[in-house]
Amino acid sequence: MTKSELISSIFSKKSYLCVGLDPDIERLPKCLQEYDDPIYEFNRAIIEATKDYCIAYKPNLAFYEALGPGGWKSLEKTMRVIPEEMFTIADAKRGDIGNTSRLYARTFFEKFNFDAVTVAPYMGEDSVKPFLSFEGKWVILLALTSNTGAADFQMLETKDGKSVYQQVLEKSQSWGGVDKMMYVVGATNPVELAAIRKMVPEHFLLVPGVGAQGGNLREISLSGLNSDCGLLVNVSRSILYASSETDFAEAAGQEARKLQTAMAEILRKID
Amino acid sequence: MTKSELISSIFSKKSYLCVGLDPDIERLPKCLQEYDDPIYEFNRAIIEATKDYCIAYKPNLAFYEALGPGGWKSLEKTMRVIPEEMFTIADAKRGDIGNTSRLYARTFFEKFNFDAVTVAPYMGEDSVKPFLSFEGKWVILLALTSNTGAADFQMLETKDGKSVYQQVLEKSQSWGGVDKMMYVVGATNPVELAAIRKMVPEHFLLVPGVGAQGGNLREISLSGLNSDCGLLVNVSRSILYASSETDFAEAAGQEARKLQTAMAEILRKID
Repeated sequence: MTKSELISSIFSKKSYLCVGLDPDIERLPKCLQEYDDPIYEFNRAIIEATKDYCIAYKPNLAFYEALGPGGWKSLEKTMRVIPEEMFTIADAKRGDIGNTSRLYARTFFEKFNFDAVTVAPYMGEDSVKPFLSFEGKWVILLALTSNTGAADFQMLETKDGKSVYQQVLEKSQSWGGVDKMMYVVGATNPVELAAIRKMVPEHFLLVPGVGAQGGNLREISLSGLNSDCGLLVNVSRSILYASSETDFAEAAGQEARKLQTAMAEILRKID
Repeated sequence: MTKSELISSIFSKKSYLCVGLDPDIERLPKCLQEYDDPIYEFNRAIIEATKDYCIAYKPNLAFYEALGPGGWKSLEKTMRVIPEEMFTIADAKRGDIGNTSRLYARTFFEKFNFDAVTVAPYMGEDSVKPFLSFEGKWVILLALTSNTGAADFQMLETKDGKSVYQQVLEKSQSWGGVDKMMYVVGATNPVELAAIRKMVPEHFLLVPGVGAQGGNLREISLSGLNSDCGLLVNVSRSILYASSETDFAEAAGQEARKLQTAMAEILRKID
């Protein structure tokens, strides 16, 4: 998907919500356990209930890998029921030497036809570049994550006064343009998000941490929006597990709708 | 596998060779293409030919993921033909927020029964710790990798004069002891390896980059050995693709044997 298609999807649906498809087998509603593939049935119902309110879906690969070969089949089937116009993100956090990164890239971009994949920056440019050579595909590079461990290395101050994650933002801008690269920026600190927005004024940011991890939608939007919107706000658990009963999909839809309504309100200010 | 079991395996086989099982579907010998599962047949033959000369196997997950659900089946079958006494490493370079890392850990340690998994440190302590809570299982944390991109962030100098990878070595020592944690240290620079050995005198180091990536076995051994041996030297391509004809397994065995002979010679000096 191109950047202008993504922007147009956001403004026409008045939403920058990304739904994280992280189906924890132990938390699925009991009513799904009779199915051969409860993960797929869960995803299918969640997608059906939320698709009017979001513009992206982000399966976290760990949840599928954990189920062995069957999990990858559930993911394949899930990808087939995600509507064409959705932006799809493989939350894989991969990154390896060049020939290996190339294989990961082909897996997610060609086999599964994802629009984007999350990539870890630790191994540097040649580990990221193979992901950038696919037309219309995106790298979403980890910059500042939303967990407490972000303080261990991402926030280390380097000799020239910048933190490691700021170095990641700075260096990686020469690897791929604003039409191929986004950044993961955790929503736990709106002040930091505003500073990051100054460093990368035109890049899209994927912001996890709203909901279960405590980030506040309004605060982080005011800090992170640019004139293209420039944000994808990911919400997983508070949508997926809004109810654990037979009404789980309806409850998920309502939760997504609440977020979309709030986003429409916020977007009105920049449109 | 415990540390003392690993050490005992090294000294009894006079080898610290780890064979990287990275079966590139495009480079497999033609004679295997008639099989239903050429990846598995390739691995099985390589394992049979090399098992007397190495003490560990390291499948890189990218090569299996690239093949979809079938690739994961090939990996499962491969794990079943690796002899019990081998140390097995899932080269996955994973790392995510706690609940997600826990899922990855269960996948590799419980479903596949690997002894170790490679983990990327960028997301910090809470992304690594879930991998450390499995008895007899190991984390192999990326410290200094062998690719050129290592210079981008790993070698950045932090305010207190240490590089980022040195900070990784230093901080992570409090997360897990020498019986649960190893480090990936690229073989491209023996001087750096010697300095790293001083920082982590008792930890095992997994050293890629010998062979196809240019590292020299003797040099890196002299820089990295400690009294437990303390090294696992990984070689992939120069063993796997020693021949592309029907004698591929025999050629792989000869290549592994050459390395083992050189290692036996080197080990004699510290035994």
